[in-house]
Amino acid sequence: MDKSDVKLVDAYRLINPGVVLLVSVGDGRADNLFAVAWNVPVRKDPPMVGIVSSKGHHSYPFIERTGELGLNVPDASLAGQVLGCGKTSGRDVPDKFARFGLTRQPAERIRPPLVAEAVANLECRVCQVVDLGSSALVMAQVLRAVASSEHFRDGQWQLDRGLRLLHHLSGDRFCASEQMLVAKVP
Amino acid sequence: MDKSDVKLVDAYRLINPGVVLLVSVGDGRADNLFAVAWNVPVRKDPPMVGIVSSKGHHSYPFIERTGELGLNVPDASLAGQVLGCGKTSGRDVPDKFARFGLTRQPAERIRPPLVAEAVANLECRVCQVVDLGSSALVMAQVLRAVASSEHFRDGQWQLDRGLRLLHHLSGDRFCASEQMLVAKVP
Repeated sequence: MDKSDVKLVDAYRLINPGVVLLVSVGDGRADNLFAVAWNVPVRKDPPMVGIVSSKGHHSYPFIERTGELGLNVPDASLAGQVLGCGKTSGRDVPDKFARFGLTRQPAERIRPPLVAEAVANLECRVCQVVDLGSSALVMAQVLRAVASSEHFRDGQWQLDRGLRLLHHLSGDRFCASEQMLVAKVP
Repeated sequence: MDKSDVKLVDAYRLINPGVVLLVSVGDGRADNLFAVAWNVPVRKDPPMVGIVSSKGHHSYPFIERTGELGLNVPDASLAGQVLGCGKTSGRDVPDKFARFGLTRQPAERIRPPLVAEAVANLECRVCQVVDLGSSALVMAQVLRAVASSEHFRDGQWQLDRGLRLLHHLSGDRFCASEQMLVAKVP
């Protein structure tokens, strides 16, 4: 997929519509992928994103140790992979890329690999962690972002060329948004 | 619209697909509405939700003073109202309900009124605030939740009866999800 750099000030728009994410972690020797519906932009410029992660997850020590996260935006064609990455633990499936047919794409600013099949990738560095008991809200600054040249243009998702953004309902249920709607103040 | 109580353990699912929210604040004398795309579930049980709000907003002192929030889930038919509530300040439009043709519905556990036209409403009490400089991540516990009896059944959004969930892209651009997709692990 041909991807272009996204201006950092527009990076929050990659996740603004409430998409589910595949989060990649890694330290250069091992890596892992997990799915996160609980994600949110928290600052526009410089861009910062929050994700909620259980501290018991196999990936959590990677985050603590490296302070680096890849956020990968899957479109609806990757719903099965998202479900698979969400339902399995890196303890049992040490190579989720191979298991789910995803391709590692080296990042420029962080060690975790990115998901080549995702329609956008954000390279992030953790800057603040809010303890929530058994989980944590991990806030990370976006250092670099790229997105599909076909589907993200002029700083905006373009939904006129077959892009279907993926949102998580619960369990194995997702929904997809595929039409843009331009609102007017009544 | 006929609404039913949602079990608190299922309340996070009302916002799990990344919908834009209309947030209502009020102290019994005055109230206000604003739009928030930057929202996220942060705990399942007891349910807690986070929203990012600028501290300069007209609504922020209401939140600080009362510690109470109504979260109202608009469907796609309310995109214009969401845009209107997002683009205007309560300083200039003291009654956004009237201005945008929305109906106040008294809440049971909090003072802010709820939006009757929303397909779901969550009554929340602030429990933690994370300072983000000019904005804040306000985390609130859900005390009570109701949703459209037609569109939320068995603890799940049902997208087979014309419900279109509303997601914010940027500015006046939104997208709507209207089809459920059941994923299978490949």
